[in-house]
Amino acid sequence: MIIVLKSDATAEQIEHIEKNIREWGLRPHVSKGAERSVIGVIGEESLLANKPFDLFPGVESVMRIQKPYKLVSREFQSKPTKIKIPWGKPGVDPVEIGGKRVVVVAGPCSVEKPEIMLETARYVVAAGGRMIRAGAFKPRTSPYAFQGLGVEGLKILAQVREETGIPFITEVMDTRDVEMVAEVTDVLQIGARNMQNYSLLKAVGRTKTPVLLKRGIAGTIEELLMSAEYIMSQGNEKVILCERGIRTYERATRNTLDLNAVPVLHKLTHLPIAVDPSHGTGAADLVLPMALAGIACGGDMLLVETHPTPQKAVSDGAQTIDEAQFKAMMEGVRGIAAVLGRAV
Amino acid sequence: MIIVLKSDATAEQIEHIEKNIREWGLRPHVSKGAERSVIGVIGEESLLANKPFDLFPGVESVMRIQKPYKLVSREFQSKPTKIKIPWGKPGVDPVEIGGKRVVVVAGPCSVEKPEIMLETARYVVAAGGRMIRAGAFKPRTSPYAFQGLGVEGLKILAQVREETGIPFITEVMDTRDVEMVAEVTDVLQIGARNMQNYSLLKAVGRTKTPVLLKRGIAGTIEELLMSAEYIMSQGNEKVILCERGIRTYERATRNTLDLNAVPVLHKLTHLPIAVDPSHGTGAADLVLPMALAGIACGGDMLLVETHPTPQKAVSDGAQTIDEAQFKAMMEGVRGIAAVLGRAV
Amino acid sequence: MIIVLKSDATAEQIEHIEKNIREWGLRPHVSKGAERSVIGVIGEESLLANKPFDLFPGVESVMRIQKPYKLVSREFQSKPTKIKIPWGKPGVDPVEIGGKRVVVVAGPCSVEKPEIMLETARYVVAAGGRMIRAGAFKPRTSPYAFQGLGVEGLKILAQVREETGIPFITEVMDTRDVEMVAEVTDVLQIGARNMQNYSLLKAVGRTKTPVLLKRGIAGTIEELLMSAEYIMSQGNEKVILCERGIRTYERATRNTLDLNAVPVLHKLTHLPIAVDPSHGTGAADLVLPMALAGIACGGDMLLVETHPTPQKAVSDGAQTIDEAQFKAMMEGVRGIAAVLGRAV
Amino acid sequence: MIIVLKSDATAEQIEHIEKNIREWGLRPHVSKGAERSVIGVIGEESLLANKPFDLFPGVESVMRIQKPYKLVSREFQSKPTKIKIPWGKPGVDPVEIGGKRVVVVAGPCSVEKPEIMLETARYVVAAGGRMIRAGAFKPRTSPYAFQGLGVEGLKILAQVREETGIPFITEVMDTRDVEMVAEVTDVLQIGARNMQNYSLLKAVGRTKTPVLLKRGIAGTIEELLMSAEYIMSQGNEKVILCERGIRTYERATRNTLDLNAVPVLHKLTHLPIAVDPSHGTGAADLVLPMALAGIACGGDMLLVETHPTPQKAVSDGAQTIDEAQFKAMMEGVRGIAAVLGRAV
Repeated sequence: MIIVLKSDATAEQIEHIEKNIREWGLRPHVSKGAERSVIGVIGEESLLANKPFDLFPGVESVMRIQKPYKLVSREFQSKPTKIKIPWGKPGVDPVEIGGKRVVVVAGPCSVEKPEIMLETARYVVAAGGRMIRAGAFKPRTSPYAFQGLGVEGLKILAQVREETGIPFITEVMDTRDVEMVAEVTDVLQIGARNMQNYSLLKAVGRTKTPVLLKRGIAGTIEELLMSAEYIMSQGNEKVILCERGIRTYERATRNTLDLNAVPVLHKLTHLPIAVDPSHGTGAADLVLPMALAGIACGGDMLLVETHPTPQKAVSDGAQTIDEAQFKAMMEGVRGIAAVLGRAV
Repeated sequence: MIIVLKSDATAEQIEHIEKNIREWGLRPHVSKGAERSVIGVIGEESLLANKPFDLFPGVESVMRIQKPYKLVSREFQSKPTKIKIPWGKPGVDPVEIGGKRVVVVAGPCSVEKPEIMLETARYVVAAGGRMIRAGAFKPRTSPYAFQGLGVEGLKILAQVREETGIPFITEVMDTRDVEMVAEVTDVLQIGARNMQNYSLLKAVGRTKTPVLLKRGIAGTIEELLMSAEYIMSQGNEKVILCERGIRTYERATRNTLDLNAVPVLHKLTHLPIAVDPSHGTGAADLVLPMALAGIACGGDMLLVETHPTPQKAVSDGAQTIDEAQFKAMMEGVRGIAAVLGRAV
Repeated sequence: MIIVLKSDATAEQIEHIEKNIREWGLRPHVSKGAERSVIGVIGEESLLANKPFDLFPGVESVMRIQKPYKLVSREFQSKPTKIKIPWGKPGVDPVEIGGKRVVVVAGPCSVEKPEIMLETARYVVAAGGRMIRAGAFKPRTSPYAFQGLGVEGLKILAQVREETGIPFITEVMDTRDVEMVAEVTDVLQIGARNMQNYSLLKAVGRTKTPVLLKRGIAGTIEELLMSAEYIMSQGNEKVILCERGIRTYERATRNTLDLNAVPVLHKLTHLPIAVDPSHGTGAADLVLPMALAGIACGGDMLLVETHPTPQKAVSDGAQTIDEAQFKAMMEGVRGIAAVLGRAV
Repeated sequence: MIIVLKSDATAEQIEHIEKNIREWGLRPHVSKGAERSVIGVIGEESLLANKPFDLFPGVESVMRIQKPYKLVSREFQSKPTKIKIPWGKPGVDPVEIGGKRVVVVAGPCSVEKPEIMLETARYVVAAGGRMIRAGAFKPRTSPYAFQGLGVEGLKILAQVREETGIPFITEVMDTRDVEMVAEVTDVLQIGARNMQNYSLLKAVGRTKTPVLLKRGIAGTIEELLMSAEYIMSQGNEKVILCERGIRTYERATRNTLDLNAVPVLHKLTHLPIAVDPSHGTGAADLVLPMALAGIACGGDMLLVETHPTPQKAVSDGAQTIDEAQFKAMMEGVRGIAAVLGRAV
């Protein structure tokens, strides 16, 4: 930590700060500059996280120099984390997230009737997709909107996996449901609105099920990593981070897909990175170009909303692509992946 | 709902859309313009909330004209909601939020030791404050930071109320804790990070305890109202909305206190409006001017962090004011309230 | 400047950086920490502004500790700057901006016909306003929208001043017009869109006319100060800074009035601070509460759009208040100013 | 335009609005809904752009349905605009922007010494780049920072073109310089800070030189199009739009590159779209992945900062790539372009 002093800080003020630093078991180190001095604090920075040095007389500002996260960092683990999800039927390789192959996960926004889920799962697999996604518990802005099929939805997803073998991702929203959902799903999703629901993060961190953690609409990259740290600090090391669009002043799209986050995250963390161009744009005709861009900049996984007839989807139809669009997207993804030395 | 058609929409496309609208039990109403036509949809707009008209051939965009919330709206109830909180000892008037008097709520960020809590409560009351605030369960960005005293903290708050009579506000973060916290606290706080934790909103909506709902750092005014609607839709009508700063590109302050929201909310809703200049600025020396501004633009309540010695507060010290600063603030608040025909 | 090194920076890398720092005439100062080391750079930080230390092997990040501005800073001049504008007729005290009295400036968005300008000027003065504002050159988003009366508008403003004595503020948008506009106006306005039009800033900096510098819709407080520094660096010390709303994700209001900026700026600079609640909200019925808030948090000046019949204003009618609303606002402003020991 | 009425709007209020609409030469069209009524206004919407219907009694809100731009729109011209820039020496095909080939433009932030410019131009051309970029007039946040070589810089650029044939792009910042710069450069750049400097837009619109218009850091896609409309409305149809990162709350990168804007702009306009991953990220090691993503989502052109030794660049070194990085980027760009059926 660096404490920047005011240009008119007195010797007494500086001594007072030094004394306090020592009381907290750390070592101060004053550097006198031409215009102002600074105090470097040597030792475990986290000890100071709650100390309000800003309030001390003579202090102008305080700068943190250590990263606040550990387990998620590249410095802690340089090798990329690979997460294996077993296929639901014998004879098929497990899905590996964070490896050489780009993993495409697709499905309707909400769990639909079994026939529709099955139809979707079949064309997703046929085109090269390796997991299905659909919400059984739905976080909806309005209390009057459809809130998902709940437990019934989980059963449909499990049934589709039994018939086709395809594993699935589904969201959990309530600490009281975590155990139950974790037992049936292959990957637990923490939605954007719950990125800083710390009770929920701790709860999923205590399971052994892989977690897809979506970035909040106003979540910084550092906060996303801190939320992953919450999960890992409880013992669950299988975390996938997902960029799904942030909220900015621009309204031509539902969200602003922040693809910069993909290479930035790859520098900072060993965890695999997913991109969701459906929520990241909010418009079906933008999904294909942004899916390609998401892979081109290094995404390990795509999360896409698809439905046999998007006009009849029970939610989020406007950003849902149909089978033909999904196939076209997969063809492009395959091409881009090859340019980067990867595969689908 | 208004469906704006593309300038080259064909008669067939228009008929197809009209047919669909009728199938959903509503009436379409086409207006042909010079450059493009629009279809007005007459009937209960909420029926269409999930219908992806954007996807229909010939459609350029869709505009909603009805507000998505009801119970919270001025149209539903024109008279301001007043929420009464009984004083914890006999002989003192209840606190009324949303009435003529501006209510000032103050206290440390986290619950501290009983002596400190008592000392704080006493100077808060002496200066004209009418409730105390402090977190027993703390949402912290880092899993390694102090997470609050938990149940022990609730006991301290109850003890302070017993001794001084002052009622309190404290946060609840987990659906599993709602019942327990609601039993002891006077007002349940939903923190900014949980503004769209719908499971939690529903859970507090099923209690009879008043709820202070803080605006999320990227929450729009409409979303804040929708979250209040969640609570009210479960039967709990005692909701206070709190502006506490939003996240913008500006970093000179921790957050950007959006005081525009105060008069805007007063137009849209009958619920009382609180302002939190401590989180809204993140700096102790900005609390006084912004508290005054918060009352000047119509705030009904202030939420302020104070501590006998902010440098020793266990959390958020940098934005915490001491007793002298609190007194000075109260003097200003009293003056401003009088200009507006209110009192403290 | 503090150069934070990577945890695995080698001795060679550190020496290489130290060598470069010395070559630029500065002194490096290495502090070895538990987890990572930092290099403090002692000497004139501005010498390093363009040096890409981020690119050197072993460097993790670079932190600036000196402020990039000088002339505008409180450290350079602790006493508040007061700017005097002479009244246009003998016998009336000059307007003083930044002094004890709060200065209210009002008028229509665009210069209107002489009769309307006169009528406005008269009711503004009668209610306690001390300057008039109106645009002769208008920055409009659309090339097809009314672009202002131009030179004709300036003449009308000068004529109103001649008849009533009231001085005025008007915008200049083009370096080619600066000299001409500066000759006639009392205060030159640099609009939000031109906050970083450095050619224009330099040009107005070379005049002796006071300048009202509006914050850009995405301008940080530091950038606003740097733009003022541009003007002052050319010799013109009469600069007024104006908060007029920033662009955020919120759309319930046209802009988000960032009142936090008022006390923050008072800490950082000696220049007077104005608040524009008309552009800051975009809605006539929000002007009064936000004008009061703008004064309550320490604004020295208000900039308000008013028109005898806003429904007929040639531009910005929706955010323009009429005479009755202006009077009501002035009454509130007078009350708030008194609470703060100021006057109107 | 759709005027949404309050639920309690009276018949008199509605008549009053209808009367006013007719007075402005347009036709009102009232639709009575279950909950509230709306008035559609038929006729040239731009006539109403300045009419403050929001202020009329009984009105709740006003919605615009026509796009405010014309010349730039796909509806005005469906065929993509292709802009040809002649090569500076005989025997080489002109550069075509907006055609089948992706055009890569590269060079240092500021114009450097002739030797460095020549060296850069040579490796840019060798790797497949087709234009050079460098600033002679530099918009710098600080008045004390290097402001560019000015006219001398233009001469160096012209000299490099003479020797190598490579055409160039350079920025113009002042209306007084437009004619002079337009005479020598191949493409005039309008920088992000000047996106809404309407005097400058009009001035470049009156030249015949192609214009690269950069999106402002808080510019919406619609405002970017309106600024291009300014240029086109003056007669200059050769406009290239450039996404270069917007300002958001995220600080892990200098800006947030909004690649969503690329496919959105392709839908709305016939003009070619460029992407600038150097300013869009602010970090050299993010340029390659984001350049690939920029092409993958449909960019027609890349604008990249490169320098033989970025550590010695006079400005923006931290985001500048060297020759080896540039070559690697070009290889990736070539691969991605091929996947999309394009070439470099």
